[in-house]
Amino acid sequence: MNFEFTIGGTDGGARAGRLASAHGVVETPVFMPVGTQASVKAMTADSVRATGATIVLANTYHLMLRPGAERVAALGGLHRFMDWPGPILTDSGGFQVMSLSGLRTLDAEGVTFRSHLDGARHRLTPERAMDIQRLLDATITMQLDECPRFGVSETDAEASMALSAAWAARSRGAFHPRPGYGLFGIVQGSVFPALRERSSRTLVDLGFDGYAIGGLAVGEGQETMFSVLDHSVRFLPEDRPRYLMGVGTPGDLLGGIARGIDMFDCVMPTRAGRTARAFTSEGVRNLRNARYAEDARPLDPTCDCPACTRHARAYLHHLFRAGEMLGPMLLTWHNLRYYRQLMARMREAILAGRFAEDAGSVRAGWLAAKEGQ
Amino acid sequence: MNFEFTIGGTDGGARAGRLASAHGVVETPVFMPVGTQASVKAMTADSVRATGATIVLANTYHLMLRPGAERVAALGGLHRFMDWPGPILTDSGGFQVMSLSGLRTLDAEGVTFRSHLDGARHRLTPERAMDIQRLLDATITMQLDECPRFGVSETDAEASMALSAAWAARSRGAFHPRPGYGLFGIVQGSVFPALRERSSRTLVDLGFDGYAIGGLAVGEGQETMFSVLDHSVRFLPEDRPRYLMGVGTPGDLLGGIARGIDMFDCVMPTRAGRTARAFTSEGVRNLRNARYAEDARPLDPTCDCPACTRHARAYLHHLFRAGEMLGPMLLTWHNLRYYRQLMARMREAILAGRFAEDAGSVRAGWLAAKEGQ
Repeated sequence: MNFEFTIGGTDGGARAGRLASAHGVVETPVFMPVGTQASVKAMTADSVRATGATIVLANTYHLMLRPGAERVAALGGLHRFMDWPGPILTDSGGFQVMSLSGLRTLDAEGVTFRSHLDGARHRLTPERAMDIQRLLDATITMQLDECPRFGVSETDAEASMALSAAWAARSRGAFHPRPGYGLFGIVQGSVFPALRERSSRTLVDLGFDGYAIGGLAVGEGQETMFSVLDHSVRFLPEDRPRYLMGVGTPGDLLGGIARGIDMFDCVMPTRAGRTARAFTSEGVRNLRNARYAEDARPLDPTCDCPACTRHARAYLHHLFRAGEMLGPMLLTWHNLRYYRQLMARMREAILAGRFAEDAGSVRAGWLAAKEGQ
Repeated sequence: MNFEFTIGGTDGGARAGRLASAHGVVETPVFMPVGTQASVKAMTADSVRATGATIVLANTYHLMLRPGAERVAALGGLHRFMDWPGPILTDSGGFQVMSLSGLRTLDAEGVTFRSHLDGARHRLTPERAMDIQRLLDATITMQLDECPRFGVSETDAEASMALSAAWAARSRGAFHPRPGYGLFGIVQGSVFPALRERSSRTLVDLGFDGYAIGGLAVGEGQETMFSVLDHSVRFLPEDRPRYLMGVGTPGDLLGGIARGIDMFDCVMPTRAGRTARAFTSEGVRNLRNARYAEDARPLDPTCDCPACTRHARAYLHHLFRAGEMLGPMLLTWHNLRYYRQLMARMREAILAGRFAEDAGSVRAGWLAAKEGQ
């Protein structure tokens, strides 16, 4: 099967697509659960599948350090390792080298850093990033990029963007094409429209199987993020998938879809689930709140996940108060199911030409819980 | 449905039985997974069912403190609360009052103690223990007993046994009979054969739906435990289920079955699973051990659980090294499945008249892993 993206319908800027790959088909818009260390936290692979997820993300930085890319390859690759035969997208490791590792030294060739686990010295170059992701057997490989902090000056952002563009070209050259596998470039340029445009154009000239928007959701706020998105997406080809990295809340996803984004990933639903926060059709609920101690109602009456169909809010509250692992397990499951159902509903709405109405009605529902979204 | 125990077959002292109850049928010998706080740790109710478990245990002491028996009752009882429509056995709270609570004062009427959670003062009497277990809607209620420490003198053990016997009578009087619900008495008497005999005879005279052997697996060692078992079981009626409380390792279970025990419970498989220890047909394996880092083989080739059929030992090793919750989740699942399959195999062996041979062959297998059993 070739790596192929087809658009089944559009509604305004929003697109309903279909991504075919060596490991299966992904309907878009899609949210990808994050399996940082080859495990979606608090979920078995079967329970991830039960949420309806069709593609997951894994982190190159974490996996190159532990258990190591060569070891994963020797064990048959990431799909077999984590029991996920479906598509897997791996990031390039660049973002986490910047945010997690110690004593990093950036040069034109790559980045040298110390592991946050044991202080051991490692080096990541565009070529090594391609090599690692090939060893992991990623369905979708991301170019190595450099992600500047929010608040960077335009001059520094330009230099950083230029470095990412140079690494995009080298990633492109080092990527080993295989049928059904894809390589994505990453648009950078911080919050500066001119830089975003240049970054997009450069990547499109190189030619990638898909395009990611990087460097957002790093503190700039939703309004700025949406405005930067507008300045990035318009320069990207219609016939390639677009992926907004590390985003976001359900509201961010609706805004991203409206602006032509097809793919999203974020730790938000899984991390929130571990800290008792549930995304629901009535907004965010914090299950540790004493108001739920005797609440016999389902968490979200519109949801079909085990947390909602089998238990009362009072039970979920009890699990978090008692420190039971099942609390994070059930709420992670629920949040991933909620994200999945939101994406499925938006896809249907796009195909039916009522995206704006449906997104509006979803947003209106979020106000009901009154715990804020 | 009446609370009814029938013996389908025996082999030496070992029995294959069938316990019918208001919440379903339990084939024996049976191991009951422990759901201390209305949750079998690291497992959903569905995954507990998937291991083949037919009955679970919950702890009165923990649940009376949090969320509270009245609250569980208001929410429809424990079965609905924890999504376990099947049989549930609750202990009486006595053991944990002794082991967990602060500043306890024992008198002839009951025990006053401070909660280990918030220091609040509580009182447990035989009558209140019956009341709490009725509010929880326990299928099998345990009498309130007093469990002396290992090493107690015979004089003190006798006094404690006499107190437990008096509480047995009061528990019997306070228990509200309902069709399909049962009340068990608890044999005490520490390691003293004469006391065990007197305790057993007293309980049998009172008449219970089943008989538990308490006060064992508290440090006396397996040989002493088996010897005490011999001195307790012989005085119990053939036609009632016998339950060895808080036991044990797979080896303890085989020894208990040989001595006529029908029911067991223990935190061992779940607690071990959370600390990377797996019970397998080849003995105990500690998955944190570096020897598993590149081991592509299944944890236990004879097991059909997700940990064994979907993953390599190297993946389980990785999960524990990386601190992923999925490690405890998968290993708990495996251990409960192992315990369940061991019980099912022994039941079959008893019915086929080859219990000793099959138990011997299981024991022989445990030597293979060479990490010790």
